[in-house]
Amino acid sequence: MANSFGNLFRITTWGESHGGGVGVVVDGCSPRLALTEADIQPDLDRRRPGQSKIVTPRKEADRVEILSGTFEGKTLGTPISMWVRNEDQRPEAYTEMATKFRPSHADYTYQAKFGIRSWQGGGRTSARETIGRVAAGAIAKKLLRERYGVEVLAYVQQVQKISAEIDPDKVKFADIESNIVRCPDSAVAEKMIRLIEKMRRTGDTVGGIVTGVARGVPAGWGEPVFDRLEADLAKAMLSLPASKAFEIGSGFSSILLTGTQHNDAFRAKGGKVYTTTNRSGGIQGGISNGQTIYFRTAFKPVATVMVEQDTVDVDLKNTTIKSRGRHDPCVLPRAVPMVEAMTALVLIDHALRQKAQCE
Amino acid sequence: MANSFGNLFRITTWGESHGGGVGVVVDGCSPRLALTEADIQPDLDRRRPGQSKIVTPRKEADRVEILSGTFEGKTLGTPISMWVRNEDQRPEAYTEMATKFRPSHADYTYQAKFGIRSWQGGGRTSARETIGRVAAGAIAKKLLRERYGVEVLAYVQQVQKISAEIDPDKVKFADIESNIVRCPDSAVAEKMIRLIEKMRRTGDTVGGIVTGVARGVPAGWGEPVFDRLEADLAKAMLSLPASKAFEIGSGFSSILLTGTQHNDAFRAKGGKVYTTTNRSGGIQGGISNGQTIYFRTAFKPVATVMVEQDTVDVDLKNTTIKSRGRHDPCVLPRAVPMVEAMTALVLIDHALRQKAQCE
Amino acid sequence: MANSFGNLFRITTWGESHGGGVGVVVDGCSPRLALTEADIQPDLDRRRPGQSKIVTPRKEADRVEILSGTFEGKTLGTPISMWVRNEDQRPEAYTEMATKFRPSHADYTYQAKFGIRSWQGGGRTSARETIGRVAAGAIAKKLLRERYGVEVLAYVQQVQKISAEIDPDKVKFADIESNIVRCPDSAVAEKMIRLIEKMRRTGDTVGGIVTGVARGVPAGWGEPVFDRLEADLAKAMLSLPASKAFEIGSGFSSILLTGTQHNDAFRAKGGKVYTTTNRSGGIQGGISNGQTIYFRTAFKPVATVMVEQDTVDVDLKNTTIKSRGRHDPCVLPRAVPMVEAMTALVLIDHALRQKAQCE
Amino acid sequence: MANSFGNLFRITTWGESHGGGVGVVVDGCSPRLALTEADIQPDLDRRRPGQSKIVTPRKEADRVEILSGTFEGKTLGTPISMWVRNEDQRPEAYTEMATKFRPSHADYTYQAKFGIRSWQGGGRTSARETIGRVAAGAIAKKLLRERYGVEVLAYVQQVQKISAEIDPDKVKFADIESNIVRCPDSAVAEKMIRLIEKMRRTGDTVGGIVTGVARGVPAGWGEPVFDRLEADLAKAMLSLPASKAFEIGSGFSSILLTGTQHNDAFRAKGGKVYTTTNRSGGIQGGISNGQTIYFRTAFKPVATVMVEQDTVDVDLKNTTIKSRGRHDPCVLPRAVPMVEAMTALVLIDHALRQKAQCE
Repeated sequence: MANSFGNLFRITTWGESHGGGVGVVVDGCSPRLALTEADIQPDLDRRRPGQSKIVTPRKEADRVEILSGTFEGKTLGTPISMWVRNEDQRPEAYTEMATKFRPSHADYTYQAKFGIRSWQGGGRTSARETIGRVAAGAIAKKLLRERYGVEVLAYVQQVQKISAEIDPDKVKFADIESNIVRCPDSAVAEKMIRLIEKMRRTGDTVGGIVTGVARGVPAGWGEPVFDRLEADLAKAMLSLPASKAFEIGSGFSSILLTGTQHNDAFRAKGGKVYTTTNRSGGIQGGISNGQTIYFRTAFKPVATVMVEQDTVDVDLKNTTIKSRGRHDPCVLPRAVPMVEAMTALVLIDHALRQKAQCE
Repeated sequence: MANSFGNLFRITTWGESHGGGVGVVVDGCSPRLALTEADIQPDLDRRRPGQSKIVTPRKEADRVEILSGTFEGKTLGTPISMWVRNEDQRPEAYTEMATKFRPSHADYTYQAKFGIRSWQGGGRTSARETIGRVAAGAIAKKLLRERYGVEVLAYVQQVQKISAEIDPDKVKFADIESNIVRCPDSAVAEKMIRLIEKMRRTGDTVGGIVTGVARGVPAGWGEPVFDRLEADLAKAMLSLPASKAFEIGSGFSSILLTGTQHNDAFRAKGGKVYTTTNRSGGIQGGISNGQTIYFRTAFKPVATVMVEQDTVDVDLKNTTIKSRGRHDPCVLPRAVPMVEAMTALVLIDHALRQKAQCE
Repeated sequence: MANSFGNLFRITTWGESHGGGVGVVVDGCSPRLALTEADIQPDLDRRRPGQSKIVTPRKEADRVEILSGTFEGKTLGTPISMWVRNEDQRPEAYTEMATKFRPSHADYTYQAKFGIRSWQGGGRTSARETIGRVAAGAIAKKLLRERYGVEVLAYVQQVQKISAEIDPDKVKFADIESNIVRCPDSAVAEKMIRLIEKMRRTGDTVGGIVTGVARGVPAGWGEPVFDRLEADLAKAMLSLPASKAFEIGSGFSSILLTGTQHNDAFRAKGGKVYTTTNRSGGIQGGISNGQTIYFRTAFKPVATVMVEQDTVDVDLKNTTIKSRGRHDPCVLPRAVPMVEAMTALVLIDHALRQKAQCE
Repeated sequence: MANSFGNLFRITTWGESHGGGVGVVVDGCSPRLALTEADIQPDLDRRRPGQSKIVTPRKEADRVEILSGTFEGKTLGTPISMWVRNEDQRPEAYTEMATKFRPSHADYTYQAKFGIRSWQGGGRTSARETIGRVAAGAIAKKLLRERYGVEVLAYVQQVQKISAEIDPDKVKFADIESNIVRCPDSAVAEKMIRLIEKMRRTGDTVGGIVTGVARGVPAGWGEPVFDRLEADLAKAMLSLPASKAFEIGSGFSSILLTGTQHNDAFRAKGGKVYTTTNRSGGIQGGISNGQTIYFRTAFKPVATVMVEQDTVDVDLKNTTIKSRGRHDPCVLPRAVPMVEAMTALVLIDHALRQKAQCE
C-alpha cells in the first residue's frame, strides 16, 4: 500500500529510473471530466529535467500517454493509467553505485530493507518517481478548478538564505512561472538563480523552501481526528524526495506569540465569516475555515554532490565516492509542480470525503 | 476512516468531552504480550489534566479499563477495547459556546462541516480525545521495547523563547520526568515553569516545541514512496491538537548548508554501518538507517484564553467572547506522552509491515 | 484491520464472550440523523439468545448503550461507540474447552493462529461478536430508509429440507416477525419450528438458508471491478458465523439455463427501465440496476452438539468431548437480523461511495 | 479503491477493452523473487481468447511486459507494473452497443452509475480486465509455491448438467490441462466439449461450476472476524465476471445434515492434527486448519448471445438487439486461471498478514 496515496481519489505510482518507464494509476476520478494528454503534459514539462540551466540535465521529453480511463476525451470513472517511457538511461554512468552507498541517499537503507536494490540511477528513489504524482496531480487540479472553484499554487519562497516576501492571497501563477526558479518576486529570483548557478559550477547543491497555497477551499474540508487537512498535507509534503520539514500557517513561529496575540479573530460581513488574521493557515481543528490555505516545506540540499565524500561499500568497508552522474544543483524549481500535485491530491480526496459523509 | 490510524497496528478512537466517555479499539496487536491496565495507566497519568500546577485543572482520575482482547493477563491477538469514563462534566461552564464560535478553535469549522456540533467542552475537539491515543501508544511502546528493543521518548525542548540543548542520543526518561514541564534540563525547566505560571496568572497561553526520539530502530523500517517513515511521523504529529509544524533531523535549518556540508558520511566499524553526523534524523529515503530518529513538533499557544476576544455567533453576527472554562496555560507537558504515543504507533506499524513484506 | 468492515461507513467490532463486554465503533455515519438507543435495541432483541424456545438459552438482556457520537439525540458525524455488557458468564460450564478442541469449531485454528485463545464461551468466536454488527446495522438501516428510501429485509427460507416459496418483491417485515423462526410463510414456519424443537430434544442441530432482500436501491450502487455489490455482499455473508455459501439472484441454478433463457430482458415504461425477469438479483456488472436485490446464504448446522464426539486435546492426544454448554439447535432465527445488518452495512457504504465519486 | 484488491499484497488493475491496453500494478510483493515474463505468460495463455475451438475467437497474443519492480531478474520489493497492449479492436463490430443496452450486461448499470460508458467491446466490463488479475495471480502463485509450499489449482467441475466427480486432495494440474475444457476427468470433459460446441453452433451460451483448491496451506491463515479466509475467497470469486454463487466445503448441501453428522472429527497422528472428514473445506472460524481448502464458484451462461432479444435503447425506448460481436459459448475454460489467480491473491495476502501479526 506504500505506493498508493489517497482514499477516494487514490493514486498508485510505479517505476524505477531505469526500466520500462514510470507511471501512475488514478482510481476514483469523477466521470465526465474532459481530459487528454494536453491537460497533463504542461505540469510534466515544469517537472522535467533539462528545462533550464539551473536543473539536472537528464535529457528526456517525458511525454505522457493515457492508456485507459477516458473515452472520446472524457473520464469514464474507471482507472486512469498514465505512463512515461524511460529514455535517457546511462547505466555506465552509475557503475560505482553498484558497490558503494552514496551518503545521505537511500542506497544503504534500500539495501537494508529489501536485501536488493536497483542501483542504476537510484532506481525507485529517483525523482522520476514523482512523474506519476505530477500527472495525477494535474487531473486533481483540473477537478478542483472546474468543479469546486479551488486554485492550487506553489512557489519558491527561499533558497538558502535568500528569501522572498510573498502574499499567499495574491500571488499569481504567471508571476511564479515568469522565471526559471519559480519565485514570484523577480528581483529575489535573480539572486536565487545566481546562487544556484554558483552551486552548479562548484558541483555543490543548495536547498530551500517551497510554499504551497490553496485558494477558494470552502469551509468544511478535512477529517478529524487523524486525517486532519494539515496532517494529510504534512504527510504529502514529507513524502516528497529531499523534504525535511513542514509548517502550516504560523508554523514554528507560532510559539513566539501568546495565545491572545496568536488567535485569529472571527468577523462576519454580508453573511460570510472570515478571520482578520490567518495564522491558522486556513485550517482549524483539522478542517478548512474558508480562508486561504498556505504552508511551507523545506527541501534539503540534494545529496548528490560532485565532490569526494566518505562512505562505505557493500562489503561494509570504508571508502570514498565522488558522484559522476547528473548534477542537480537545486531541486526547488522542479519541486514546485510536485508540491502543487500533492496538495491537489490531498484536497480532492477531502472534497470527495466531505461530499460522501456530510452532504 | 478519519478516526483510525495505522495499517497493521490500527487504532480507532472515539468519544467527546461530554458523553459516556472516551476510548480506543486497538486492532492488530500481536498475541501473547503481557498486558494489564497497569501498563496503560502511567501514560494516562502523564497526560491527565490536574497533574501539576501548570496544566489545565479538570479533575478526572482518567482510570482506564480494558474491556476485551486479553485473557489471563495476555493479549489474544483480537481487538483490545479500552475506555475511560467522563466524570467532570460541567455543561453550565460552557453555555456561551452554544452560540459563539471561539477564535482559533474548531467550533466554526465543525459547524461548517457537520452542520451540528457538540459544543459542550469542545466535544470531539477536546484534548480528551487523545486519551485513546495515549492508551494505545502505551501498548505500542511495550511491544517495541520487549520485542524490538526500541525505546521511544519525548521531551519539551522549548517554551516560547526558552530553549534547552538536549542530546537525543543520551537523554534519559528519568530526567524528562524529573520536573513538571518535562524538560530534561532542570535549570531550563525552572525558567519554563516560571513563564507558564505567569501565563496562568494572566489568563494567557504559551506554546513551544516537543522533540520526539526513537532509539534502537533497526535499519529497514519505513515504506517508500508515500508511507515514508518521516511522512507518517509528520502526519502523526500534525494530527495532534494545536500542532503547527514538524521537522525531521536538520529540518528547516538544513537549507542553510550546502549538500557537501549537509551530507551524513557513512563509516563502518566491526561490520556495522553508522553515520558520522545525523542530519538525516535516522531516516534516509523514507527508511530508518539504524541511527537515532529524532524530530521536532511545534505546538501553538492554546486558543482558550481568559481574555475578551472578537468573534461571531451562530447567526453570523459580530460579538465578543471571553472563555470562562478551564484554562490550560501550556499544552506542552501533556503533549509529551501524546508525541510518544503517536511515535510508537507509527513505528510498530512499520515494524509489522517490514516483517510482512521483507522477512 | 480484520475487525473492521466498510470503507466510508466503517465499523470496528470488539469483545469476547467472556470479558467486559462486546461493542462496536461506527465511523463515517452521516451527521444530523436522529438516533437513540431505542433505534438499536429492537434489532438486538431479535438477535438475543433466549428470545424463544428454539434458540440458545443464554440469559442476557443485551441492553445497548451509546457512549459517543450523538448530541441531543442526533448524530454528530463523529464515531458512534456502542456496547453491551457481558452478564451471563459461566466459566465453570466450559472448563473442558480449556484442554480440548471442539470439532468444527474454531478452537483449534485460533490456537494455531494466535498461540493463545480465550477458551471461555468461545471467546471472540462467540456469536456475541455479532452484537456489534447488528447494532451498527440498525443505524445503517435507518440511514438507508430515511435518506435513500431503501428497505432491507431478511427471512428464513429453508430449514434442512423444509423450504418456503417467498416473493422477495412482496415479502413483509410483519409477516417475517409473526413467528419465532422468522419464516414469512406461517404454515411452513410451523414445520420448521417442530423440526428445531426435535433437534433441541435430541441435542442435535440443524441448518438452513436465509434470504436477504433490499428494495428501493437505485440503479448505480456498486463499484466495479473488485468491490462489486454482490462481491461485497458475498464477503459480508461469509463473514457471519456458520455461513457456508452465498448466491445472488439465480445463483447456482443459473447454470441449468442457456444464456438465451437466462438473460433478463430490459423494458421501459414511463421513462423508467425495468427487467421482465430478475435472475440478475438486481445487480449487473457489480452495479445495482434498480430491481429488487435478493440473495441466499446457507448456514450449516451449529457445531455445538450435546453428543459425544471424537477430537484431540491441546497435547495432541486423541480423546472425546461432549458439550455441556448452552445448546443452540438452530442459528437461523437469530441469523436474520445479522443478515439484515451486514446487508445494510454493504449498501450504505456503496451509497456513500456513489455519492462521492459520481454525483 | 474499487480497482484494488488485497491489503499487503495489493493489486490495482486498469484498462478497457478498447484503448491503449490493460494492466496491473502489484504492490507489496516480497523482494528477491526470481521473476520474468516467462513466469506470467503461461497463465495469460490459459486465459487468452482463441486458445481453442470452444472459447471466444478474439485474436490477441496477449504478450505481457513487465515495466518495473524487477532488476536483473529478481523482484525489488517495489511496485511491479505489467501490461498487455490492446490489438484486436474492432469498433465497427459494436456500433449497435452505442445506443442499446445489452440484456444482463453492465451497459445499463454503467450508464446509470457513471453517466458515461465506453461502449466499445464492453469497455471496463470486458473480460480483458482479468488479464491484470491473472498476471498478478501468477506472481502470487509463485510466491506461495516457493516460499510457503502451497499449491493452487482450479478446474471445471460442471457444465450445465454435466458434472464430474473429482477429489480435491488428489487432482493434478497435468490432468486439468490435458483437455481444452479443463475438466480433469477426460471422459466427462468430452461430453462438456460437445455441449459447448453445440452452443457455439446455435449462438447460445452455457454456464457451470469451477472448483478452486489450495493444498499445503498451514493452519493459521485467515483473519477473523470480517476478513475470514472464506469471506475473502467469496468476495474474490464474486468479483469475477459472470459469477453468481460461492460455496466453501459442504456449502449449500451442509444444510441437509444435522450437526452431529456434519462435524469434522479431529484426530492426531505423529504430533499432527487432521480431520477425518473435510466438510469445513479446510477453514474453521475463518482460519485455515491445515486440511485442503476447496470451494465452488458458479458462472452463469455468458450474456452475449447471437439471438435477437428484447431491450431498451439510451432514449429509454423499447427495441431489440442481436449481438454481432464475438461469441464466447462458455466462459469456464478461461475462468479456471482467473479462479486460480484470485485464490492465490487471497492466500498470499493472508500469509503476509499472519506473518506480520502472529510470528
